[in-house]
Amino acid sequence: AAEVALLINVVFSVIGYFLTIKLIPSFAEHFIVANLYGRDLNKKSDKKVPEALGVICGAIFLVCMFFFIPIPIFMPLPFIQLNIYNFKEFIQFIGALLSICCMIFLGFADDVLNLKWRHKLTLPTVASLPLLMVYYTNISNTTIILPKPFRYIVGSEFDLGKLLIYNVYIIGLLYYLYMGMLAVFCTNAINILSGINGLEVGQSVIICISIILHNLVELSGPVAAYHRFSLYFMMPFLGTTLGLLRFNWYPSKVFVGDTFCYFAGMTFAVVGILGHFSKTMILFFIPQVLNFLYSTPQLFRLVPCPRHRLPKFNPETGLVGMSKARFKPSEMHILGSFIIRIAEFACVVDVKRGLGEDGQYMEINNLTLNNFLLKILGPTKEQSLTIILLCIQAVCTAAAFFIRYYVSTFFYD
Amino acid sequence: AAEVALLINVVFSVIGYFLTIKLIPSFAEHFIVANLYGRDLNKKSDKKVPEALGVICGAIFLVCMFFFIPIPIFMPLPFIQLNIYNFKEFIQFIGALLSICCMIFLGFADDVLNLKWRHKLTLPTVASLPLLMVYYTNISNTTIILPKPFRYIVGSEFDLGKLLIYNVYIIGLLYYLYMGMLAVFCTNAINILSGINGLEVGQSVIICISIILHNLVELSGPVAAYHRFSLYFMMPFLGTTLGLLRFNWYPSKVFVGDTFCYFAGMTFAVVGILGHFSKTMILFFIPQVLNFLYSTPQLFRLVPCPRHRLPKFNPETGLVGMSKARFKPSEMHILGSFIIRIAEFACVVDVKRGLGEDGQYMEINNLTLNNFLLKILGPTKEQSLTIILLCIQAVCTAAAFFIRYYVSTFFYD
Repeated sequence: AAEVALLINVVFSVIGYFLTIKLIPSFAEHFIVANLYGRDLNKKSDKKVPEALGVICGAIFLVCMFFFIPIPIFMPLPFIQLNIYNFKEFIQFIGALLSICCMIFLGFADDVLNLKWRHKLTLPTVASLPLLMVYYTNISNTTIILPKPFRYIVGSEFDLGKLLIYNVYIIGLLYYLYMGMLAVFCTNAINILSGINGLEVGQSVIICISIILHNLVELSGPVAAYHRFSLYFMMPFLGTTLGLLRFNWYPSKVFVGDTFCYFAGMTFAVVGILGHFSKTMILFFIPQVLNFLYSTPQLFRLVPCPRHRLPKFNPETGLVGMSKARFKPSEMHILGSFIIRIAEFACVVDVKRGLGEDGQYMEINNLTLNNFLLKILGPTKEQSLTIILLCIQAVCTAAAFFIRYYVSTFFYD
Repeated sequence: AAEVALLINVVFSVIGYFLTIKLIPSFAEHFIVANLYGRDLNKKSDKKVPEALGVICGAIFLVCMFFFIPIPIFMPLPFIQLNIYNFKEFIQFIGALLSICCMIFLGFADDVLNLKWRHKLTLPTVASLPLLMVYYTNISNTTIILPKPFRYIVGSEFDLGKLLIYNVYIIGLLYYLYMGMLAVFCTNAINILSGINGLEVGQSVIICISIILHNLVELSGPVAAYHRFSLYFMMPFLGTTLGLLRFNWYPSKVFVGDTFCYFAGMTFAVVGILGHFSKTMILFFIPQVLNFLYSTPQLFRLVPCPRHRLPKFNPETGLVGMSKARFKPSEMHILGSFIIRIAEFACVVDVKRGLGEDGQYMEINNLTLNNFLLKILGPTKEQSLTIILLCIQAVCTAAAFFIRYYVSTFFYD
């Protein structure tokens, strides 16, 4: 029966793909009329590109899932009273979709209303609440399996929830905090590694394929149910996202907006948390983690951060190069100037001093992975840069599998 | 414990009220910048009024509910394995919120993108799917209690689901179809009875208070659990909606948009269906039902229907009067012209013939309850018209209580 459900899920995913490629062009004009458009800064032409089309992709995903849910839940036992196991699965579906739906809604509101940074951080936290409640009712498992070196000290596994401090499950709560932070991280990490055609959607497709591969490997293992659940979400996600990629690939006919990044990030967080592979999930996010770490001085405003940090287009050569932030050294936080000195010494940032008429200004490349690659490669075609970044993403997946299935055997049984 | 949960719910509702009145003014400017605004056609001034502010109200409602859910679910039994009863209640919360969240999202998308009529009908249907699934798992009750006159024939109650036709639960499915239609009706009915300041929100407030009264009456009865569940949703809804009403009351500082109508309609449908009082619920919707019936010739295009049907403002007197649709008699469907003749004979529509230079045109008042009242009352102040309509809504509630608690005793035990 489980195989039949998976097969039907694949059919729904294919339908999702075709619905997406049918609906996106028919809605694109609506978005421009509604003032939802941008100009592609990396192109010579100045035409309006509709923005926030990720919302179509997300809505189709939701509709596919709404129609799919009854199949694994009711198919095995029609007209029979549901047992607690079915309830648990049902509640996982509904709770996961509530978090995702809430995130698509908030992402779309963000695209329309241009919310502030503090909203971008609080909204995913709120949207992940239903997910954490479902985790609490269904699993409530805060046990972590300890790596071998620790076992001599405290035994082979360790329930964080049992670590009572003042009779309160402090450490157990910390585990929930970690899961909530994971949701915030996933939704923002994809959003930060962006700015060139096809990158947001492309990286999501590769992460999604990585997760599907991981799920398929584990499908014959002892925790198959978790990974089947993840597949139910990942395949329609892949279908609708591939549909979106057709229009977002270089040269982009549509932009995806924060909506898509939030939608993708929350969907990954949902399957990572409810599928119990949040550690493996982070391995698939290595480029995003690196990009986030590299960006921190600008994100936390230790170094001045311009509004846009995407690579800079040179209309004469048709290539993109590093974009720079120009400021007076006095505008930096003391910690920022310390970090920049170290980074300059390590050759990971491009610094120029004594610029401007009276030499008061300095310039650094904007701290994103895109600009770092351009520093190494020199000016590049936009499409090549996207492909290189996606290759890095794929290599990271290979590394993730190596760590998960080979390296970890030294630390875990 | 149930009383404590209700008390906490009231506190959350009050917080929701204050959050709404704090956030609406601080976001209003964002909406105008995002091109979400309209002009008030019934005012002399031409200033931009932000539109679709219902989305703030809906988002605050969701946040309140997300924080509230753990209280009735986990409070009675912390750290204890949940039993199937808790699961059922939890799933009702999550499923109901999924339908509501989905509807707010689609309503907001409608406001931004100006969707077509066919979308307005399909979207609530899709959004009600999770609700129907939750109904199926939790209750699966398609039994209707028959009125006394029928009992001599088929007994005192009747399970529609048991009426097998070709071994398929056709009639049971029809009951689900009815519930889905109820969701579509509720979401659109409030949207159609609108067009003057404060009307959409005002009628929702009165319907909400009516439901709360009904729930409080039943709270001491045998189905208290259902009505407590309804209260958990209705009180935060009342809180956030009253906050919105402060800004939407005459003269409106903000417009609420389709978002609010969809949000309100779906919330009512959710509590009506999961609270098992969908018949009583329809009694609270009498003005909307009348408005819908009166509107049918225009809604189904039997009679030409202009883009806007709201009452017409006369800048000289400052009063609003009937708005009219002008067309050639040949533009009417044959059924439409038949209906108009009957309605004219019954004096419920204002018809003028032989208009225009060569007498080719005819004119009827637009078929809405607002215009019908203006036909009776003559030109009126906009605010007075709103108040009269809200009084009618309140009278209908009284009638609903009379029917539910007095008349029905003749038909049911």
